[in-house]
Amino acid sequence: MHVEPNVLALSFKVTILGSSGAVPAYGRHPSAQYVEIQNRHFLIDCGEAAQMQMMRYQVNFHRISHIFITHLHGDHYLGLMGLIFTMQLQHRTGPLHIYSHDGLDDNLTVQFRHSRFMPTYDIHFHRLKPGVSEMIYEDDVLTVHTVPLIHAIACSGFVFREKPKPRRIDKNVLPPNLAIKQLTDLKAGLDVVDDEGRVLYRNQDLTLPPRHSRSYAYCSDTGFTDSFIPYIRDVDLLYNEATFMVDEESKARETLHCTARDAAGIAKAAGARRLLLGHFSARYKDLDPLLQEARDVFPETELATEGETYVIPE
Amino acid sequence: MHVEPNVLALSFKVTILGSSGAVPAYGRHPSAQYVEIQNRHFLIDCGEAAQMQMMRYQVNFHRISHIFITHLHGDHYLGLMGLIFTMQLQHRTGPLHIYSHDGLDDNLTVQFRHSRFMPTYDIHFHRLKPGVSEMIYEDDVLTVHTVPLIHAIACSGFVFREKPKPRRIDKNVLPPNLAIKQLTDLKAGLDVVDDEGRVLYRNQDLTLPPRHSRSYAYCSDTGFTDSFIPYIRDVDLLYNEATFMVDEESKARETLHCTARDAAGIAKAAGARRLLLGHFSARYKDLDPLLQEARDVFPETELATEGETYVIPE
Repeated sequence: MHVEPNVLALSFKVTILGSSGAVPAYGRHPSAQYVEIQNRHFLIDCGEAAQMQMMRYQVNFHRISHIFITHLHGDHYLGLMGLIFTMQLQHRTGPLHIYSHDGLDDNLTVQFRHSRFMPTYDIHFHRLKPGVSEMIYEDDVLTVHTVPLIHAIACSGFVFREKPKPRRIDKNVLPPNLAIKQLTDLKAGLDVVDDEGRVLYRNQDLTLPPRHSRSYAYCSDTGFTDSFIPYIRDVDLLYNEATFMVDEESKARETLHCTARDAAGIAKAAGARRLLLGHFSARYKDLDPLLQEARDVFPETELATEGETYVIPE
Repeated sequence: MHVEPNVLALSFKVTILGSSGAVPAYGRHPSAQYVEIQNRHFLIDCGEAAQMQMMRYQVNFHRISHIFITHLHGDHYLGLMGLIFTMQLQHRTGPLHIYSHDGLDDNLTVQFRHSRFMPTYDIHFHRLKPGVSEMIYEDDVLTVHTVPLIHAIACSGFVFREKPKPRRIDKNVLPPNLAIKQLTDLKAGLDVVDDEGRVLYRNQDLTLPPRHSRSYAYCSDTGFTDSFIPYIRDVDLLYNEATFMVDEESKARETLHCTARDAAGIAKAAGARRLLLGHFSARYKDLDPLLQEARDVFPETELATEGETYVIPE
């Protein structure tokens, strides 16, 4: 099968591995998501059985280089130890970067010690700062920032944003016989000049505007607040927890979780294009009422469904 | 629905929740078994996702009072933290007894601390002694002893044995008009006497022999050895790990695991009635060759299949 390299290179997609709240129910698993952006491979949260979910949905977890853990409630990290074990048993060699609030390295290293197990690949722990937004990852094409969420313990969401992209050469107006150097300049955003430096063509006349820089925000767990809206503004896709429905609003306030309506309100206030609901309470077997509750406020809402991949097109 | 109390009261059954080795594969999960003996409810090992497996197979884990963990390799205990969380979230009140080698309490309490989570039901940690067999549980009807296994870290199997049962009153020969006290004496194994203490009927003439006292041994993980045979002698059912086949015998020796043939040899040497194979390596999709290998040595062998319940009849 022939695949256009660009199709792979410019992927931006999110695969749901777990959509349940703290107690798994109805076949739903604790929080975990696999994010692939332009051949970078990330995991957000790693609830119990995340490794089995990746096997089930044929996610090659050996390609994951960075794991972002929102907070240290069990349903968001308990699958990490098993994943680390399996990576070792399957002979991983590349380094693994793990981002979390204080304590995860402690949780893991005490278990390594009692198992007399030490991964032979490098694990780098990165400690998140509570209560602020910081850039924790950057490469040529994207950044990852934390989003300060409101929860019973230190908790951060994550927002992935592609960097501004270069203007694209417009093949319809491209003059023939440009030299390699002239084409390279054009791709780099420069005008086309002759040997003496005189402008032959202005860049904007031979190029099209850059493609859209896509973005994804993951906000879970969090109480309802507008305090983190500035950090997730205009994202193409927002995953926001919707543990409860509005008839359990007082329970949501008390436990610092959102209702489906809260999630929709956050999506609307942030100017998100699409909303994914997740982190569903075990009290809901049928999730359609949550979907309807959110769509009444924010129509572009979907339920996070395990095994489904949500693509953000360019 | 009417259920004969005795049918429930005299249950002795083992439900397989996980049958895989260290790396889960082909839908098989890490080690965990639910054991019900005469309305006592136990868990042996608690690999990742054990709580989901219990939900799937409708095991009511709130009834489990004692959890026995063989050793501190991740595939034998990583589901415990999630189970403890869920028990709390579902308002467990009864105490939970957890038996393991040194370190498990440390593994759990460091996680409790970082989660700011403390169960409101009591958890009692019991530390196993490595390298010896000891009685760790006893009640009116059964005992549990440890079985010293051979592994890279301290590891104990468990053997459950019903205590000797009383002789049973033979209703076919029971004289009419016995007083309540005389019947009570008879059930307690005493002769029937009159008010002056004279023997009217000898106990053995009015009773049948006691029912068989059943037993189950769980031996995983372990290298091949005859050193623990004395502790599992004559069990009705032996679960013995069979990580590999004989063509990987050197790998089995090196990693202190058994082949299917080893497991069968242990069952035969111990005089077990039936053998269950489990802890299968991820290299085997089809397990029938392991079954055949063991049956060549010990015909009464079965594969441990997840979701299946293996009953030991009286």
